[in-house]
Amino acid sequence: MGVMDNVASVAESLSALFGARATTAPGTLAGHGGSEAYHASAPPDVVVFPETTEDVRRVVEICARMNMPMVAFGAGTSLEGNTAAIHGGVCLDFSQMNKIVAVHGDDLDVVVQPGITRKQLNAQLRDTGLFFPIDPGADASIGGMSSTRASGTMAVRYGTMKDNVLALEVVLADGRVIRTSKRARKSAAGYDLTRLFVGAEGTLGIITEVTLKLHPRPQAISSAVCSFDALDDAVATAIAVIQSGVPVARMELLDDVMMRGINAYAKLAYREAPTLFFEFHGTDAWVKEQADIAEEIAADHRGQEFQWATALEDRSRLWHARDNTLYAGLGLRPGTQAMITDVCVPVSRLAECLLATKQDLDAAGLIAPIVGHVGDGNFHVLILVDSADAEEMARARQVHRRMVERAISFDGTCTGEHGIGLGKIDFLAQELGEAVDVMRTLKNALDPANLMNPGKIFKARPAEPEAS
Amino acid sequence: MGVMDNVASVAESLSALFGARATTAPGTLAGHGGSEAYHASAPPDVVVFPETTEDVRRVVEICARMNMPMVAFGAGTSLEGNTAAIHGGVCLDFSQMNKIVAVHGDDLDVVVQPGITRKQLNAQLRDTGLFFPIDPGADASIGGMSSTRASGTMAVRYGTMKDNVLALEVVLADGRVIRTSKRARKSAAGYDLTRLFVGAEGTLGIITEVTLKLHPRPQAISSAVCSFDALDDAVATAIAVIQSGVPVARMELLDDVMMRGINAYAKLAYREAPTLFFEFHGTDAWVKEQADIAEEIAADHRGQEFQWATALEDRSRLWHARDNTLYAGLGLRPGTQAMITDVCVPVSRLAECLLATKQDLDAAGLIAPIVGHVGDGNFHVLILVDSADAEEMARARQVHRRMVERAISFDGTCTGEHGIGLGKIDFLAQELGEAVDVMRTLKNALDPANLMNPGKIFKARPAEPEAS
Repeated sequence: MGVMDNVASVAESLSALFGARATTAPGTLAGHGGSEAYHASAPPDVVVFPETTEDVRRVVEICARMNMPMVAFGAGTSLEGNTAAIHGGVCLDFSQMNKIVAVHGDDLDVVVQPGITRKQLNAQLRDTGLFFPIDPGADASIGGMSSTRASGTMAVRYGTMKDNVLALEVVLADGRVIRTSKRARKSAAGYDLTRLFVGAEGTLGIITEVTLKLHPRPQAISSAVCSFDALDDAVATAIAVIQSGVPVARMELLDDVMMRGINAYAKLAYREAPTLFFEFHGTDAWVKEQADIAEEIAADHRGQEFQWATALEDRSRLWHARDNTLYAGLGLRPGTQAMITDVCVPVSRLAECLLATKQDLDAAGLIAPIVGHVGDGNFHVLILVDSADAEEMARARQVHRRMVERAISFDGTCTGEHGIGLGKIDFLAQELGEAVDVMRTLKNALDPANLMNPGKIFKARPAEPEAS
Repeated sequence: MGVMDNVASVAESLSALFGARATTAPGTLAGHGGSEAYHASAPPDVVVFPETTEDVRRVVEICARMNMPMVAFGAGTSLEGNTAAIHGGVCLDFSQMNKIVAVHGDDLDVVVQPGITRKQLNAQLRDTGLFFPIDPGADASIGGMSSTRASGTMAVRYGTMKDNVLALEVVLADGRVIRTSKRARKSAAGYDLTRLFVGAEGTLGIITEVTLKLHPRPQAISSAVCSFDALDDAVATAIAVIQSGVPVARMELLDDVMMRGINAYAKLAYREAPTLFFEFHGTDAWVKEQADIAEEIAADHRGQEFQWATALEDRSRLWHARDNTLYAGLGLRPGTQAMITDVCVPVSRLAECLLATKQDLDAAGLIAPIVGHVGDGNFHVLILVDSADAEEMARARQVHRRMVERAISFDGTCTGEHGIGLGKIDFLAQELGEAVDVMRTLKNALDPANLMNPGKIFKARPAEPEAS
C-alpha cells in the first residue's frame, strides 16, 4: 500500500471515529502548516481535533498502525517551524482540549489540558490569588510551551517551562499513556521523564495533560525604563542588578532600532537608544527598595533618567509594546517578513555578542531590531527581509549563521527558547556534537518508526516502507 | 572466562594503568560498600581513584570490555544504598577529582569536578560574594548530589540539583564522553540531557564534570524558631507563608520527638513540641519585613513566641543542630541504627500524612523523630531500630511501607530527595506504573549490558555471560 493510500485510509478511519472533528478541508490543512515564522508552510494531510486523552490515544494507534506521521499543534505561535508537517500525516489540533482539570490552591499548582493558552489560564485563575508567570510574548498554548521549553520575559525570576512543569501525561508512539510524575513539589524517584518530554517538541510523545506550578500574585508591581548611550553599559547594569541579589521579575534590553519600532507602534516617545525595561514584584516596601537599588546601579553605569511607571495603565502600555515586538519590528519595514532567531550566551559575553551581531547586520545592510532577556543572556534578532529577494535572503541567512556560530563559540546555545524545529538542526550538532547522537538514541528507543513530529530536532525521516 | 577471572584481569589492567590508585585492599573495599544508611554493605571488587576524565574513560572501556559493573562513589553519604556494589565490580572513588575547574563570577556559575563536596566548594567561593545553596545536611559531593537529585533545607527558595546544574560532562557506558549542554543560563536546544543524568544515580553514565549555578550571597540573613501545640498548625503556617509570597530561604518542621533529640544533642532548651525553623535572606529591611510577615502568620495559627536569632553565633548553633538531625536522632536511643526514609506529598496533604504516620509509629511502639522541608511537602522519618532484632525490624519495615504507600496515595512520591537506590525500587513501580518501563527502555538504550550501577532504580541485572 502506498503512502497516499495510507492517507486516504487514515482519513477514513479518523472520520469514522471523530466525524466532523477530523477534516481534510484544504483551508483547515493550510491553517496548520506554518507558524509565526519565516519557514515555509507544510500542511498536514488530515487535521483532527481531540477532546480527550482517549481520543489522542486512538489517533496515535491508527497512525502507528498505518505508519503515518503525527504532529501536535497548539496555538501555532512557534518560531522555528516546530509544527510544520514536513512529512505530511496527521495534525492533532489541541484547541478543543483547553480546560482546567483542577486548581490546587494550597499546593500552588494547576492541572490543565495542553490546548489552554497562557492568557486563558491566567484569566481563569484571576480569583485564586495565584498566577502562571511564564510569558513568551505570544499567547501560546501550555502544551506548545512545554514542548518547546519556552520561557520569555519572566524567566529571570520564575524560571522556564522546565522549572514550572511538575508532571505530564503523555501518549507514547506505541499508544501507551504514561504519567511522568506525581504531584509532589519535588521528587528523586527515578529518571526525570518530565524534563525529557519538556523541550522534546513532540518528537518523543504527545502531551495530553500538564501539571504546572503556580505562584502567588505579588502584592505590588512596579516598572521602570532606563536608557543608555552605550549598549555595553546597559548589559553591565543588568549583570550588576542580578549580582546584587535583587530578584528582578523582568529585565528586558531593547536596542536603538527596536526602540524606534516601539515608539512608532505604540505611539510612545522614548529615547531611541539601548534601553532596559524593568519590572519588580513584592510587597510595597520591597518593590520600592528593589527599584532604588536598580536605579543606583543604572546611574553607576551612565543610565539616563530612570523613569517609573507604577500606575497600572502606564505599565500596561509599556509592556504591551514590549510584548508586541514582532509587530513593532515589522512596522520598521512594512511588507517584509521577520527572520526571527534567538541565541543565549553566558551574560559575561553578552555585550560582545550583541555588538558583533549589530556590526555584522549593519555591514550587511539589514534592518534588524534586537530585544533580549538580558538577565539570562538570551536575545532575539528580527531580521526584516523581503522573502522574494533571493540575494537579500542569502545575505540574511549568512548573518544569521555567523550570529549563531558566534554564540556557540562563546559557550552559548543556538536557541535559548524557540527550540530547534527546522531552523536550528545543523546548529544543534555544532553545539553539542556527540550528545546529539545520544538524543537520537533516545528518539529511536521511544519512537523507532519515527512517526512523532518527524524531521524536527533531527533531520532525516527513515525511508517510507515499501509499497506493497 | 568466569566472573572471578574477569575480576582478577580487570584488577590487573587497572593496576597497570593506575598503580597504587587502583586497589583491592580489603579495608578500602569495605569502606566503599555502604553509605550512611541501614542497607547492608556490599563492597566492590576493586576501587580506583581517577584524577581526570580520561582516567574515567579508560576505566569504563576496560569494564565494558570485561563485562564488569561500575559504581561511581562520591562522599558515601547517600541513604538508600545508592552506591552499594551489589553485583561487585569496580568502584570509581572521585575523592581525587575534587577541584574547581573555573569560577565565572559575572555568569554566576562554577565548573567543578564531581568529587568536590558542597562545603569544600563554598569554602573556596568565600571571596567571590557567591555561594552554592543546596544543603542536604551531609557534606555530600557535588557528583553524588547531582546523581541523586539532592535538595535539602534551601530547596524551597533555591530549588534542587535539577534546578542548579547547568551542564554535565558524562562518560557513557561505551566510553564516549559527552557534554550535555553549553554554559548558557537556559537553552531550548534539543532533549534535556542534563536533567536525564541528574537523578539517574549513575545508571546511565558517569558524571565527570558539573557546571553549577551560583547565587549572590545575601546581604542579610536572619533565623527564627516558633513552636506549636498542634502539628497541623505548624503545617498551616508553612503553607500560608509560601502563599504570602515571602521567599523563605529555609522552613523546617521538627516534630516533638526530634526536638527532644536536638535539645539533648546540642544542649538547647527549646519546647519539645512541633517547631518551625525559618531562615530569611535579603537586604536588612527586606529580611525584617519577611520575618514580620511570617511572625504574623504564625501568630494567626497559634504559634508560641517567635524567637529571633540574628547573631551569627546563635544562628549557627541552631542550624548546626538541624544539620545533624541524624546524630541528634540516634542519641534518643543509643546503640541503634536509623532506618531513614523520605517521602514528599502535595503540601495540602502534608499534615494528614504526618499525623497518620506518627500514629502508626506510636501504635507500633517505635521511636522515630521526624524532620521536614515543609515548604516542599517533603519529610524524613528516622525509625530508630535495633537491626539485630528481627521482629522489630519487620515492624519497622511495615510502618515504613505503609508510610510510603500513604504518600503515593496522596499523589506524592516515594522519595523527595534520597533517590531510589536499593530501598525504593518496589515503590517506584507503585508510584509511576508504566512510566517505569519507559525508564527501563532508556536504560537499555544507553547501557545495554547493564554495567552502570546495576541493580539500582531497577531490580535485576541480566544473567552473567557464560563461562568459556
